[in-house]
Amino acid sequence: MRVGLIGVGLIGGSLVAAWRRAGLLDGCAGFDLDRDALAAAAGLGIIDRAADSVAGAVDGADLVVVATPVGAMPAVFAELAGVLSPAALVADVGSTKGDVIAAAREALGAAFARFVPAHPIAGRERPGVTNADAGLFAGRRVVLTPEAETDPAALARVRQLFECTGAAVEAMPAAEHDRIFAAVSHLPHLLAFALVAAIGGGDEGDRKLAYGGAGFRDFTRIAASSPVMWRDICVANRVALGAELGAYRQMLDRLQRAVDDGDSATLQQTFELAARLRRQWAGDGSG
Amino acid sequence: MRVGLIGVGLIGGSLVAAWRRAGLLDGCAGFDLDRDALAAAAGLGIIDRAADSVAGAVDGADLVVVATPVGAMPAVFAELAGVLSPAALVADVGSTKGDVIAAAREALGAAFARFVPAHPIAGRERPGVTNADAGLFAGRRVVLTPEAETDPAALARVRQLFECTGAAVEAMPAAEHDRIFAAVSHLPHLLAFALVAAIGGGDEGDRKLAYGGAGFRDFTRIAASSPVMWRDICVANRVALGAELGAYRQMLDRLQRAVDDGDSATLQQTFELAARLRRQWAGDGSG
Repeated sequence: MRVGLIGVGLIGGSLVAAWRRAGLLDGCAGFDLDRDALAAAAGLGIIDRAADSVAGAVDGADLVVVATPVGAMPAVFAELAGVLSPAALVADVGSTKGDVIAAAREALGAAFARFVPAHPIAGRERPGVTNADAGLFAGRRVVLTPEAETDPAALARVRQLFECTGAAVEAMPAAEHDRIFAAVSHLPHLLAFALVAAIGGGDEGDRKLAYGGAGFRDFTRIAASSPVMWRDICVANRVALGAELGAYRQMLDRLQRAVDDGDSATLQQTFELAARLRRQWAGDGSG
Repeated sequence: MRVGLIGVGLIGGSLVAAWRRAGLLDGCAGFDLDRDALAAAAGLGIIDRAADSVAGAVDGADLVVVATPVGAMPAVFAELAGVLSPAALVADVGSTKGDVIAAAREALGAAFARFVPAHPIAGRERPGVTNADAGLFAGRRVVLTPEAETDPAALARVRQLFECTGAAVEAMPAAEHDRIFAAVSHLPHLLAFALVAAIGGGDEGDRKLAYGGAGFRDFTRIAASSPVMWRDICVANRVALGAELGAYRQMLDRLQRAVDDGDSATLQQTFELAARLRRQWAGDGSG
């Protein structure tokens, strides 16, 4: 299999590395607007050839993997449209699906049937191709969100390719995907960024941060993630994220009143619900 | 040294265990409203004697450690007032200081000079005396918040006793302590509880929680903490916490507008500030 990789970061690089390790790769050409990342990917042997355009990376590819931030994908799909070979499959690895599908449908024409929307759930705080790891997807989930037009053979092939990385692959509607990840991924990232910005950027910010303990460290770990990637995700999934954020803000309005009024009962009720759900979810409360 | 331990939980139990290991303990009597916890503490050899009242635990003690949830401390101080021997020192280990100091000052009379307010920064998600650990404080901070009336000899003795647990001890004004920990401890706990309650208690809650990945796990770990303890902390420190929560809600108001409007610039600016502060604080962004 010859792969054209558009966007050489942690996810794209790890995917190609996994396929290379599995002996599935006959070659991989990569392209990235970040020339340093592209050179690093070539230097590490993640890609075999650094192309100087999307068209150059896609030339001769059986599979094109679009692994840029989701905000860049519409432009990538537009470039792909004219240069994709007739049998080539396309998959993305974006964290949002409704917007990516809409952009692909608009740009790809008939080739949209060979586009398989995918979301490998395997982020890390350390982004970049230099942290790529062939084992990144082992035991992780990959969610595919095929549309009515998606060619079943293309879907089956992409599913198989993700399974070869050790991932557990499943499918669901894009809208459901976007609601779920707005809640358990996009909102927590936004909240963590907001907390560090609010505390660190406010009065006595440095002094306060100096006293953050293990709990604060865990809570804010995701605030070390890529700002550009998360900016794009928040905008791309703004409808579902906006709804989750709105519901969360209503919860905080209630808790602010409870704090200000010293309303122990409301606080305890909310905290007990959360602690019970957290224990159920994590199995034993320690995870 | 004979210790009277009021409240046999993780912190109190670990403190006594650390002193026992250091050979400082001539005996420890404990009291707790939770008779199971008290029996467990005796069974584990954390305490030498289970008393049936505050007075019974304090009888003959050189040092009384008040290690209940902060909401219970005013009642404990009131009971202590009449039964404390003339030379006995008192220390608490509460996570809030202004309210605890006010309650101690009101209840203890002249003995308030021998009261040393302390906050060992060493919580764990698994509460309870069965998780007590003599090494819990090694390398952790302990913040003392003495008042003008605090006897310097009492302060020095309590400082030394915490240092014997391996902790790094420092002092600051109670108001400053309460502002700092409202920001980096109390607010994150409230936010984590609120997030799990909002998601898990809302539409498709179970289904959403099932997709929480490593980031969500880290972000919500502190929501497995004791609801009663955190209810008390939020009420005890409601002025400082209310101010921090208010500032955070303003930040979220701004971000909600940015999400709804697709305002990439505001999102990126906030996320970059946070990522930079987080990396500075944690050293390398991975912590």
